[in-house]
Amino acid sequence: MPEYTIAVDAMGGDFAPAVPVEGAVIAAREGGAAVTLVGDEAAVEAELAKHGASGLPISVAPSEGVVSEAEPPALALRSKPRASIAVAVGLVRAGRAHAAVSMGSTGATMAASALALGLFPGLERPTLGGPFIGLAPETTIIDLGANVDCKPSQLLSFGALGASFERFYRGKESPRVGLLSVGSEDGKGSRQVKEAFSLFRSSGLNFVGNVEGHEIFEGKADVVVCDGFVGNVLLKYTEGLAAAAGRHLASRLGADNPAAQAIAGLAAAAEGGGGPLFGVNGVVIAGHGRSGAASIAASVALARFALDRNLVETMRGDLASALARAEAAG
Amino acid sequence: MPEYTIAVDAMGGDFAPAVPVEGAVIAAREGGAAVTLVGDEAAVEAELAKHGASGLPISVAPSEGVVSEAEPPALALRSKPRASIAVAVGLVRAGRAHAAVSMGSTGATMAASALALGLFPGLERPTLGGPFIGLAPETTIIDLGANVDCKPSQLLSFGALGASFERFYRGKESPRVGLLSVGSEDGKGSRQVKEAFSLFRSSGLNFVGNVEGHEIFEGKADVVVCDGFVGNVLLKYTEGLAAAAGRHLASRLGADNPAAQAIAGLAAAAEGGGGPLFGVNGVVIAGHGRSGAASIAASVALARFALDRNLVETMRGDLASALARAEAAG
Repeated sequence: MPEYTIAVDAMGGDFAPAVPVEGAVIAAREGGAAVTLVGDEAAVEAELAKHGASGLPISVAPSEGVVSEAEPPALALRSKPRASIAVAVGLVRAGRAHAAVSMGSTGATMAASALALGLFPGLERPTLGGPFIGLAPETTIIDLGANVDCKPSQLLSFGALGASFERFYRGKESPRVGLLSVGSEDGKGSRQVKEAFSLFRSSGLNFVGNVEGHEIFEGKADVVVCDGFVGNVLLKYTEGLAAAAGRHLASRLGADNPAAQAIAGLAAAAEGGGGPLFGVNGVVIAGHGRSGAASIAASVALARFALDRNLVETMRGDLASALARAEAAG
Repeated sequence: MPEYTIAVDAMGGDFAPAVPVEGAVIAAREGGAAVTLVGDEAAVEAELAKHGASGLPISVAPSEGVVSEAEPPALALRSKPRASIAVAVGLVRAGRAHAAVSMGSTGATMAASALALGLFPGLERPTLGGPFIGLAPETTIIDLGANVDCKPSQLLSFGALGASFERFYRGKESPRVGLLSVGSEDGKGSRQVKEAFSLFRSSGLNFVGNVEGHEIFEGKADVVVCDGFVGNVLLKYTEGLAAAAGRHLASRLGADNPAAQAIAGLAAAAEGGGGPLFGVNGVVIAGHGRSGAASIAASVALARFALDRNLVETMRGDLASALARAEAAG
């Protein structure tokens, strides 16, 4: 019997339930985790049957309905309390799964996780961050759209959680944290950034000051902190630019030109796997709705890695320490 | 005698005075405008001597000092009232030049222009916008960093001025105007964007709603409106990405590979020429500090074009009309 059981939202994502089920089968074959597929039982069983999965450690937990990208998450969860994402994180809360994975609505995953598992002290909402730029693959940008209109203290929490993740995930001893802004000098930026600046300075983080847009590519910081409005615009802008550049080069040089193929992956990181929600009291991996089966299996593996290393406890401690220092200084 | 006299800030930009002087010589040779070079007389004359410019319609107006990128513009202008940019726009105010061109500190150009020439009714500061994305060369992004922490009514003024410029400059009959946001549905976004949304709807502009980051590349709007914080991050991010992509492809494919060369120009538009300040009562063209002589000559030509077509009067009227409609509706 595998050490961990991971709940996979079988109804979340653009190609559900086929792709989540296929991803779960890959993960179960890899070993190390049992998978509980959460979704419409008949549909999930029908997909499972296509894969000859009968000998694998896969079970099915029934749910009713799904929260789509277009729905306001909190409202949708109230009207569909048995939606797949709610049941999946509910299994984690009940101790029947160790972690959850979903490629469904990120907003719904965050809302359901916060509700079921609770947040780290000092947070009002979970946050999402990670590297998404192929040309800066080791730079975490945080927040990517989970939080807009952030208070300066929220930005500080993004910095602390991002640094914690970089240390945890990539083993960087003292990740450099910067604030995305419109000038590199101290005191340049929006009111929000200017107010956050002094909090960062007294947080104990390895704060390198403001980071301008182009400095993301110059390796000035390991963690680049921004309001989720800016982060989400940058994330989608980069996806759009990569796609457009790939099309443009293909039309000029031919689709089989290696440069045309390289550039689409260059600007945007491959859409591989998901990332953990930062700030919830449990391991929840959220990914892109367009994710393929391999990405879902990679997300299950990431969940195991996070459980093995106590990601949640580490990040909670790091956040508490940064907030306490900033408060003591302020 | 040429119809127009254009004041060129000979001390502004990274390569002043050599490059502004060379640009002025090119412009004067092209005809259509006399150029007044504003700067340190001895230094400017020395540069002019290198170009055998004695027969050309070029004069020199003396100034004292220059405002650098690093200085706070308003403060610097108070302590250096005879700085080159102040003298250049002062010539416009005094009717001794028809327009001004500067590749110096954009902040200083805006502050000096607002001070000397005044702003359109309804504006608190000038704004800067334009296309900067090689893959979306006909999309104006506005504001690019002149204004941060914008009120919703400022965003509306950007939309009106951007649309006016697109109609004026590219002859688009009814340019589509969108608000950069984190979701395409109405009502998604930051507080700022949500409040601006209803103003746009009643402005009489051809408002197409929210534009997400990737939709910039899908031609959803001719004018994409954003706070200058976001616009400036995007502008610099794009410059950094283009440079990094060019380096990466060159290292993989060889520097002489056409794709490696193409991509640097693809992501960022060529740094050619400057753009007009929007919202000041006069034609002032501001450009990148790294601009070469050809860009400076192109900026002089743009100034002539703007004067020929009454850019300032057109834009002032379009702004007044959009603000009046939004106010009447609100």
